[in-house]
Amino acid sequence: MSEYKDLNTPARILLGPGPSMVHPRVLSAMSHPVLGHLDPEFLKMMTDVQELLRYVFQTDNELTIPVSGTGSAGMEAALCNFIEPGDDVLIGVNGYFGERLCDMAGRYGAGVHRMDKSWGDVFSLEEIQRELDMRSYKLVALVHAETSTGALQPLEGVASLVHDNGGLFLIDCVTSLGGVPVDIDKHGVDIAYSGTQKCLSCPPGLSPLTISERAREVLHSRESKVKNWYLDMSLVEHYWGDERTYHHTAPISMNFALREALRLVQEEGLEARYTRHRTHAEMLWDGLNDLGFELYVPEAHRLPVLTTVSVPESVDGAGVRRQLLEKFNIEIAGGLGALAGKVWRIGLMGYSSRRENITLLLKAIQDLVE
Amino acid sequence: MSEYKDLNTPARILLGPGPSMVHPRVLSAMSHPVLGHLDPEFLKMMTDVQELLRYVFQTDNELTIPVSGTGSAGMEAALCNFIEPGDDVLIGVNGYFGERLCDMAGRYGAGVHRMDKSWGDVFSLEEIQRELDMRSYKLVALVHAETSTGALQPLEGVASLVHDNGGLFLIDCVTSLGGVPVDIDKHGVDIAYSGTQKCLSCPPGLSPLTISERAREVLHSRESKVKNWYLDMSLVEHYWGDERTYHHTAPISMNFALREALRLVQEEGLEARYTRHRTHAEMLWDGLNDLGFELYVPEAHRLPVLTTVSVPESVDGAGVRRQLLEKFNIEIAGGLGALAGKVWRIGLMGYSSRRENITLLLKAIQDLVE
Repeated sequence: MSEYKDLNTPARILLGPGPSMVHPRVLSAMSHPVLGHLDPEFLKMMTDVQELLRYVFQTDNELTIPVSGTGSAGMEAALCNFIEPGDDVLIGVNGYFGERLCDMAGRYGAGVHRMDKSWGDVFSLEEIQRELDMRSYKLVALVHAETSTGALQPLEGVASLVHDNGGLFLIDCVTSLGGVPVDIDKHGVDIAYSGTQKCLSCPPGLSPLTISERAREVLHSRESKVKNWYLDMSLVEHYWGDERTYHHTAPISMNFALREALRLVQEEGLEARYTRHRTHAEMLWDGLNDLGFELYVPEAHRLPVLTTVSVPESVDGAGVRRQLLEKFNIEIAGGLGALAGKVWRIGLMGYSSRRENITLLLKAIQDLVE
Repeated sequence: MSEYKDLNTPARILLGPGPSMVHPRVLSAMSHPVLGHLDPEFLKMMTDVQELLRYVFQTDNELTIPVSGTGSAGMEAALCNFIEPGDDVLIGVNGYFGERLCDMAGRYGAGVHRMDKSWGDVFSLEEIQRELDMRSYKLVALVHAETSTGALQPLEGVASLVHDNGGLFLIDCVTSLGGVPVDIDKHGVDIAYSGTQKCLSCPPGLSPLTISERAREVLHSRESKVKNWYLDMSLVEHYWGDERTYHHTAPISMNFALREALRLVQEEGLEARYTRHRTHAEMLWDGLNDLGFELYVPEAHRLPVLTTVSVPESVDGAGVRRQLLEKFNIEIAGGLGALAGKVWRIGLMGYSSRRENITLLLKAIQDLVE
């Protein structure tokens, strides 16, 4: 067996689609000694995490918890708890994560109806209503912030259309939560999931999930067991509810980290945080325009926290990314799926969203493409 | 919104069924700055983690990875990848986690056949053969170390019976891995999962999983998609394989922690580690006997890393546990399921398995029950 060296991670400046950089207070929280998952002191912390999650989601939903897995586990929890075989679901597909929702929903036996649009576009109320006119759906899912394209789906008015149709309104807010207003209750969202490693600036490992009372009733009136034990919210809710009944061992240290990351959100305040993300995004956009780059998504529905940049034919996109990493310790990402090889994805999320990072990145890109 | 205090975790001595205490080097590893999940430096670390997991499992299985969830996610991954609707599976049920295996397997459409035995007992080769004589099973599952009872299931000779019957041999080694010999290849085990928070003394959050080539062929020749996207090893294997293709964002900091915990296992050496766990278990057993307690599981198949103690009628079991926590900062657990209210469960796992902890616990119990 070979020798395994002491851990010595390079000091990366993480400006990709996540994970984002993590505040020292959050890193430090993870180095606290572990508690048992039923320790009274840990149970109190769980309450803190739930209250703080409700704040960042802007919801009163009682069933608001961190799922014990990364964002994709949250996505799966958001689907598997509400789908029974044969249920019709409508999924907006305008990027990679819409595709993933379809794949997952199909595995749970849903009749998957796709609403397709070009990558980078978003759906209008008229387009959604047109699909709803076709049939009743148990669930309608949209990706609020498409991490593969950098498009921001407007949420205003969608819920009432979905509710009039008799279904539940589900959103993916993996990349928006904590960086862009999500406002679950105001927008009438029934089910939403996120990740910790984006605008919350906590390491990956948990997935915030919130479920409305309307959705919870659907969960409780299922005819069949949820086809996923680990993510079965009808069981998990008893651990995160008043009973605190053992289901699975929660990832203790990750919950320490999330609590600290959420405290930082609260200290900054949501409005100030949104403004910071927006201001820094505009700095980045202006700088990229000055360098002659085109931004892939029109400004009207451009996501402030993740920017897709069209890579000109004259530029070796992968080569520049590699040099950014090797010479400047900066991580940005390439395109995913339909946008592979066509764009860079630059994230300014949470603790990564700082002016010095933008100035450095723009100068580094300038040096490398000249 | 209330004020959320600075994190200040009590200095617990964790002597329950997990999480166990975590070595300072492992806690410190988690406070390292985060890397991207496709960063070349992180990809190297993934290789380290896989090699070190193969060492602790004692296997050459290529598909040996940490599942991005706690032990129960590993349990679910071990089942859902191999079960298709209608497959017959045989599950040994002699405790809480055998029951959980049945629940999960049923959710994936298996024909679940239970082999029941009293809690605390283990299965003989004859008993297993008797069940195998009834029909062919796609999969036969046993719990190696039953965390609910403290019984250690012998593995010798089981695999050849299962293989002659045409099935795959699956074990739950959540509580044994790193504390008791598991020896996957020697015992012909096809699928095994564990947790990080037991004898590996890493915080909860990942689940080591190993899959033999025989089992991998079964996975690759499925007729239907795995009914769980997050845990679909036919997708996950491309991230942990040579391609390093994105599937979901790995829990980066938890992988830092696991790598460090496994380095500590390697530095100590498996044999020395098993001896330490055994020696300390015997110290505990002798001490409990001296105090007049009866141990629930006969010595012949008693698990060294987790001891169940029968609580006499004269003793307020829950009250003593509460006082251990409040007065001595010591966590031990009560019984689960059929043993609720009847036993204490005392774990001496990984970094918790130290002489000073045993001496303190015995004296504290003596003080409290006198």
